[in-house]
Amino acid sequence: MLKKRIPFLNLSEDEENRLKHQIFDIIFETNTRTGKLFNIILLLLILASVGLVMLESIPSINARYHKLLVVLEWILTTIFTIEYLLRIYCTKKHWKYIFSFYGIIDLLAILPFFIGLIYPGSKFLSSIRILRLLRVFRIFGLTQFTRGRNVLVIALVQSREKIIAFLSFVLLIVVVIGSIMYMVERNHPESGFTSIPISIYWAIVTLTTVGYGDVAPVTTLGQFLASVVMIIGYGIIAVPTGIVTMEMNKAAKDDIPKNTEVCPHCADDYHLDSSKYCKTCGYQLNPHHKK
Amino acid sequence: MLKKRIPFLNLSEDEENRLKHQIFDIIFETNTRTGKLFNIILLLLILASVGLVMLESIPSINARYHKLLVVLEWILTTIFTIEYLLRIYCTKKHWKYIFSFYGIIDLLAILPFFIGLIYPGSKFLSSIRILRLLRVFRIFGLTQFTRGRNVLVIALVQSREKIIAFLSFVLLIVVVIGSIMYMVERNHPESGFTSIPISIYWAIVTLTTVGYGDVAPVTTLGQFLASVVMIIGYGIIAVPTGIVTMEMNKAAKDDIPKNTEVCPHCADDYHLDSSKYCKTCGYQLNPHHKK
Amino acid sequence: MLKKRIPFLNLSEDEENRLKHQIFDIIFETNTRTGKLFNIILLLLILASVGLVMLESIPSINARYHKLLVVLEWILTTIFTIEYLLRIYCTKKHWKYIFSFYGIIDLLAILPFFIGLIYPGSKFLSSIRILRLLRVFRIFGLTQFTRGRNVLVIALVQSREKIIAFLSFVLLIVVVIGSIMYMVERNHPESGFTSIPISIYWAIVTLTTVGYGDVAPVTTLGQFLASVVMIIGYGIIAVPTGIVTMEMNKAAKDDIPKNTEVCPHCADDYHLDSSKYCKTCGYQLNPHHKK
Amino acid sequence: MLKKRIPFLNLSEDEENRLKHQIFDIIFETNTRTGKLFNIILLLLILASVGLVMLESIPSINARYHKLLVVLEWILTTIFTIEYLLRIYCTKKHWKYIFSFYGIIDLLAILPFFIGLIYPGSKFLSSIRILRLLRVFRIFGLTQFTRGRNVLVIALVQSREKIIAFLSFVLLIVVVIGSIMYMVERNHPESGFTSIPISIYWAIVTLTTVGYGDVAPVTTLGQFLASVVMIIGYGIIAVPTGIVTMEMNKAAKDDIPKNTEVCPHCADDYHLDSSKYCKTCGYQLNPHHKK
Repeated sequence: MLKKRIPFLNLSEDEENRLKHQIFDIIFETNTRTGKLFNIILLLLILASVGLVMLESIPSINARYHKLLVVLEWILTTIFTIEYLLRIYCTKKHWKYIFSFYGIIDLLAILPFFIGLIYPGSKFLSSIRILRLLRVFRIFGLTQFTRGRNVLVIALVQSREKIIAFLSFVLLIVVVIGSIMYMVERNHPESGFTSIPISIYWAIVTLTTVGYGDVAPVTTLGQFLASVVMIIGYGIIAVPTGIVTMEMNKAAKDDIPKNTEVCPHCADDYHLDSSKYCKTCGYQLNPHHKK
Repeated sequence: MLKKRIPFLNLSEDEENRLKHQIFDIIFETNTRTGKLFNIILLLLILASVGLVMLESIPSINARYHKLLVVLEWILTTIFTIEYLLRIYCTKKHWKYIFSFYGIIDLLAILPFFIGLIYPGSKFLSSIRILRLLRVFRIFGLTQFTRGRNVLVIALVQSREKIIAFLSFVLLIVVVIGSIMYMVERNHPESGFTSIPISIYWAIVTLTTVGYGDVAPVTTLGQFLASVVMIIGYGIIAVPTGIVTMEMNKAAKDDIPKNTEVCPHCADDYHLDSSKYCKTCGYQLNPHHKK
Repeated sequence: MLKKRIPFLNLSEDEENRLKHQIFDIIFETNTRTGKLFNIILLLLILASVGLVMLESIPSINARYHKLLVVLEWILTTIFTIEYLLRIYCTKKHWKYIFSFYGIIDLLAILPFFIGLIYPGSKFLSSIRILRLLRVFRIFGLTQFTRGRNVLVIALVQSREKIIAFLSFVLLIVVVIGSIMYMVERNHPESGFTSIPISIYWAIVTLTTVGYGDVAPVTTLGQFLASVVMIIGYGIIAVPTGIVTMEMNKAAKDDIPKNTEVCPHCADDYHLDSSKYCKTCGYQLNPHHKK
Repeated sequence: MLKKRIPFLNLSEDEENRLKHQIFDIIFETNTRTGKLFNIILLLLILASVGLVMLESIPSINARYHKLLVVLEWILTTIFTIEYLLRIYCTKKHWKYIFSFYGIIDLLAILPFFIGLIYPGSKFLSSIRILRLLRVFRIFGLTQFTRGRNVLVIALVQSREKIIAFLSFVLLIVVVIGSIMYMVERNHPESGFTSIPISIYWAIVTLTTVGYGDVAPVTTLGQFLASVVMIIGYGIIAVPTGIVTMEMNKAAKDDIPKNTEVCPHCADDYHLDSSKYCKTCGYQLNPHHKK
């Protein structure tokens, strides 16, 4: 345990543990006043930082305010980096947090900026930090909406078998359709069918009914086949809807836990209201954090 | 109560109350003959006025008939303004009407015209007055269709939690997709991915399967990622359908009130057939207005 | 009754009635061998004639085979005209047939050709005669498929209230969206928003997720609003699916009549298997025509 | 039976039967170790060969590596041809295998290559061999996913009546819509409505909400009619979704067999777990092949 102490602070083990607990309460929980405040500020900083990245990508704005944007981005990323390190510090099982879903997102939120110092293009990936809002949403105990989301997530998870079966079927079919269309249209370069991969791209664009029109058949046979593909697509697009509707009906009937507590030891969540110990690591849960 | 009297009419309080009642019966109810007539004329005037605004927006027609269109618009807007003032006058709780759903629409229907005298462009917003048909539909006691609508409205209201959760999820995802696509395509200006906001616009156009084609990837990696986005979109588009179908099934089972009466005191509606007093303000309902 | 006899044939009333019955059995029923043969030939002639019209519309083919196509069209239309007159002749209540669903289609199938002699363009409407296949399908007693169709038709009829309510709501919303977008984009003619009607057209193209791309916003505000419209469209497109799914579930549970008999008096159909008299005109049904 | 022996091998009837059994166990089953290995290698070879065909279709890659690609394709097709002949050899009823679903796909996987020696274009159809993955998926006993697929297949098969009725209705309607739009737009060649078949293609592109935009109305009447078509399409696209959802609900309730055994005599599959003899040819099933 001694190794985990911060070296330049002269704290006893007890004092340090108390410090860790206090930090944990502020940044992981929102039932305390300071925790609430922290998370509201965090929410605003995330939104501001995503806004910054977007503004930087607009040539006219970047040309005029380049320096200001860079400075602000440095400040925000520094804050997020300190916050990330504090999160590691105050959880008991560091690696568990680092490789948890939210831990990875917290890292992905700061990584593109540092990579961007070497490969400039990648800094635009910083807007991936908007995914951090997922935790803020959950932490604020918007149970109603979280619950709505849970029905969706459960429905999607329950239907993953059927969805994977469906997607693998779609993948097989677009390869076949793409190849046939390439054979039919390849002598008409103005149609845009310049290779089988492009034709497969067209097949996906058509089957999903997106239909950009950048690739479109020009021969009579090609247009006839495309019509057949679209008619088939009619039936195909109905399948995922059917799957999700069916599973959502089932999921809606089940009870969904709405506890927003987080284990102070391993940062695991979705505990039951009656839980006294973490279901994953057995650590005692803080009863004051219950809603 | 004295303040509410019209100053230039020498009416006793009783006479004025009777007048208010008569006006109320004509413009808020349709079970009386004059009320029916009034609302049919109103329906036609609204349609005519929306038609006028549309005609004015067509350059060739506006060039030829500009003066005629302007005069007709002045006449119709004057009528609607007088009607709006009368509606305020004859309801007992003026502010309640003004800030009610229909009160706001009645105001929005005349406001753009007056703003248009200063900022010419805004007059085209006048066609927003087509929303006034909502009240006409309801008032005509098209109970069958109103009922059909109610099932829809109830289904949508019931599913608002899930829909908000779904939309916030879609918003997070389009920001992430947009940023990644911008990084991939930003060196190919012919693709149209000129900034992250434009890329997010593309992501929404693609995920909703609208697919204009004004922005479309041109690199192989971009087209591959776009294909993945479309395949994901397949599953995503199924979600709102599943939600609405589920809620509609529930809503269809419930009984929906079909009474078209309006409280003469606070203009509240959706009373039960057996109601004798307004459920909102307690004012006695007129039994002759029941269907 | 004398007036209904064909003048240039010297037939007694009895003989003529027998003749009418024979014609009726051939062209309205398919349980007799000759009736079956007649309807198969009719099916082929309809398909051939629709093919002719299509070929004539293709400039390169029309240039080369114009005369042949015209001659063939004259022959086929003459046959359909004679058949139409025979159908009138052999049904007892002539006007009832003429104004029945199939009677109108039979007329629409030959009318465009004759109008086309005066206004050449309208002859292309001749391909509307493909709707005549509806009767052929039904008459062939493809009960399985007819039954499948019936579930659809009943589901659509049952949900007409909700669908009309939904469509009127969509119409109101596209007018409002179209007006707002016109105001935003009207100073950028390259966007294609040249008038409110065109903007409404764009709103419909977008809400239905068709998305041609011939009209597309170019301003940042316009693209933002378009994104909002598409996200709303997400929810809107779910509504008709929900309605139809719900009604189809109901319709599938009910029993659907699959009798293909036609009343020899008024050409009414969808009789029950146990029916002895026509449910519409009371005429005695022919027991030999039952399936 | 003597005729079926391979002439240049001096094997007794018994020895040859044993050989056939061994080959059958390797290439048709996966519960043996060698069978598993064979099918994993086959899976990789199929993917590699489809990749080859795709690479060959990309002009820049084909220009540089043409010879290498041709040699690799010769090798892979030779392997698939030998495998196909072995499959024929080791099944007891040769013709039954050849005309079975998988037998035809196995043939289609090698045929385009040989036809491509005469008509070069057809070699691109070789990527149709990706359909061979269907057997590999099934054979690997991915019962979970196969089961997911089965629900889909059963739902689609059960709803075939309704789907055919729906498609025939859509076909009739697009012919009528296409003809009307051709009449309206044919004097505006920039709209792209150059013939009735093209107009029908447009109608399908629009009704399915694909909307390429290569053909789009330019006249006011045409755009109005197109709007009507899209609004109708709103309802139409809901129909297949309704059908599939309904049938999927039914199919999900039924029990679906998940046995992956294949009869060594006639290559029939979908046996029950309790089956001792093939349900199609009565041949004794190998109990060791049960899962």
